[in-house]
Amino acid sequence: MTRPTSAADWWRRPGLDFRHGELHLGRQSLARLAEELGTPLYAYHGARIRANLRRLRAALRGAARASRIFYAMKSNRYPPLLSALAASGGCGVDVCSPDELALARRAGFPERDISYTGTSFSERDAQSLARHPRVHLNCDSLSSLRRIARLSPGREVGLRINPGLGIGYRRNAQLRYAGARATKFGLYREQFGEALALARESGLKIVGLHVHSGCGFLTPQLGTLDRIFSAVRPFLRAVADLRYLNLGGGLGIPLAAGDRPLDLDAWSRLIRRHFGRDTFEIWVEPGDYLVKDAGVLLLQVTQVEIKQRTRFVGLDGGFNLHPEPAFYDLPLEPVPCRPRAGAGQTVTIAGNINEALDLWAESIALPPLEEGDFLALLNAGGYGASMSSNHCMRGKFVQRLLP
Amino acid sequence: MTRPTSAADWWRRPGLDFRHGELHLGRQSLARLAEELGTPLYAYHGARIRANLRRLRAALRGAARASRIFYAMKSNRYPPLLSALAASGGCGVDVCSPDELALARRAGFPERDISYTGTSFSERDAQSLARHPRVHLNCDSLSSLRRIARLSPGREVGLRINPGLGIGYRRNAQLRYAGARATKFGLYREQFGEALALARESGLKIVGLHVHSGCGFLTPQLGTLDRIFSAVRPFLRAVADLRYLNLGGGLGIPLAAGDRPLDLDAWSRLIRRHFGRDTFEIWVEPGDYLVKDAGVLLLQVTQVEIKQRTRFVGLDGGFNLHPEPAFYDLPLEPVPCRPRAGAGQTVTIAGNINEALDLWAESIALPPLEEGDFLALLNAGGYGASMSSNHCMRGKFVQRLLP
Repeated sequence: MTRPTSAADWWRRPGLDFRHGELHLGRQSLARLAEELGTPLYAYHGARIRANLRRLRAALRGAARASRIFYAMKSNRYPPLLSALAASGGCGVDVCSPDELALARRAGFPERDISYTGTSFSERDAQSLARHPRVHLNCDSLSSLRRIARLSPGREVGLRINPGLGIGYRRNAQLRYAGARATKFGLYREQFGEALALARESGLKIVGLHVHSGCGFLTPQLGTLDRIFSAVRPFLRAVADLRYLNLGGGLGIPLAAGDRPLDLDAWSRLIRRHFGRDTFEIWVEPGDYLVKDAGVLLLQVTQVEIKQRTRFVGLDGGFNLHPEPAFYDLPLEPVPCRPRAGAGQTVTIAGNINEALDLWAESIALPPLEEGDFLALLNAGGYGASMSSNHCMRGKFVQRLLP
Repeated sequence: MTRPTSAADWWRRPGLDFRHGELHLGRQSLARLAEELGTPLYAYHGARIRANLRRLRAALRGAARASRIFYAMKSNRYPPLLSALAASGGCGVDVCSPDELALARRAGFPERDISYTGTSFSERDAQSLARHPRVHLNCDSLSSLRRIARLSPGREVGLRINPGLGIGYRRNAQLRYAGARATKFGLYREQFGEALALARESGLKIVGLHVHSGCGFLTPQLGTLDRIFSAVRPFLRAVADLRYLNLGGGLGIPLAAGDRPLDLDAWSRLIRRHFGRDTFEIWVEPGDYLVKDAGVLLLQVTQVEIKQRTRFVGLDGGFNLHPEPAFYDLPLEPVPCRPRAGAGQTVTIAGNINEALDLWAESIALPPLEEGDFLALLNAGGYGASMSSNHCMRGKFVQRLLP
């Protein structure tokens, strides 16, 4: 599936397509689901998540002697989705707060299948981790190492490093994790010796390194990933008997016409070229890659009205339900659940929040829409529900995991 | 209080100042409150809210024959704060969703003291309003007029108009409500005749006009407000027997050194010059102006660490607790609750969320900070808690209304 995705239907695939004139997610008509459950409604396709996971596992098998996947819970923590992943045995889970850790345990993940990668680590965070000694912990500061040494003496830990390079979704500056400017994440080269000495003196055992290189990368960004991997080598040389190298997440998916899917084979070859002869395991922490294209946000058209030659289509949900279009400039693709016949119209899709930025999409071509129609916003499975707010007390929604 | 606010202590005022070396909100030491209740913690100063309300009422008395204030609930819906405002009798409340309407009723506001200004009005929204016939409703589209005519025949309604001009906080494009580009809000001039005809034919009675001109305006923006008010006149001429003109909210407060407080006298004179001879009441809908500078967000320092010559101060709460610094480029002023002696240091204040944009402030000068110190983020009383999310499951906080 590496064909260009430039057509209006670039997003169509088996499992997400029209059948009998209705948009289906798997075998489910989304208009019917919306009629049954009401909107706003997030629907997730279990089969797509499983397929994404299988594809990633296959790619990793070619990349390293041994590998593990830890699903980044912060992208979507809907409990049935977490339980399904835990029951699948196909991945562990990465958490970043004590409450996420507790939820992972409730969903059925054993401690050994949980990694914890936090930042600005508090005393309470460290106390919570001390109660879960087999959770794989990545520390990203000298301060957190000191806390852990005090509360969990002798613990095995990973060190989050900062290679000084990064990739952001569509070069979005807000999403740059590790770049030219100093970021809060990870240990830089000049701190690394001190971190190793501190761990040694305080009796902690360094068993892993963690590097998060960015988010949303596709094939054109693999060159930067190559340089990031090269920058990891000096850190590796300084540590003996490493059990794992965690390469973080960041694998992106196509979000708009013209985006091509990430070339997973090329990604796999890149990992093998850099780390294929090493004895440690390769771990990864995908979030969006597993769940984003498996989820849709269903909303209903409340009005269609022309203002100053702009045709505004109003929906019954706004940016507080999914922050990515308004705040991160990452599009969700709007698709009518039962497209009407007729010439396409250029529309601006607006939410129901009293803020001017509450627009789902601007000046896009869609089939005719009328009040009462259901619209699916595609690629809404990651960082949507999990980041939603109750702004204007319009934060309620239903969720469903479809088989 | 129109002196320049350029000094480092520009924010100090009676009721928010240091006493015995500790930052106080009213008579309460904020460090002690944080020790007692834990962090993250929002504290609101009731006396300051009352003072803001009194000041605004006094300014309005000089501006119009009769006036009313409707507090914009979406800025802060903490129930004790709402109940205190309802009990004060000093203002009504503006809501923008059925759930906000229900909360207003629970807080003690009678229907006649509630205005409803929604957008992308759904059938459910209209049904909810039909159950509250005395709520003052502002419609912002032909579609919503049709719904109301059907569900609440004969109702008195206001029309939200769009004058085609707007003001945004610090010219933030995201916060432009009504400007050169078409926005989703309100009826434009060319729709207005049709809206009046539709109301007449369907038996609705137009009793008010509503115009929201922007947000966060200070004295330098009053020139734009002048032009906006002029642009309202043609709408006024088309409607007889208007009971009220609602000028919306948008009154700003100083957020950074160098900002001067809004000259309320000048604002009042501007209203009087435009509408002083009219017989209708002047209504306003302030949110931030009443509550923003009455609230602080208290967080604890989890670590202080130098990375690449940047001194990062990590806190136990992140941008998900208050979106304005990261998403709207609106600063919260960080002030240590118990400032330590010693030379000031240039620091970057970071939250505990795994996103690079999770910074509270960059490269600012503060007294020395250590782990365990409490930091107050000032001007956090509006659009903080009410827009917070549970991202990374780090969304918990305590709230308190101080006398």
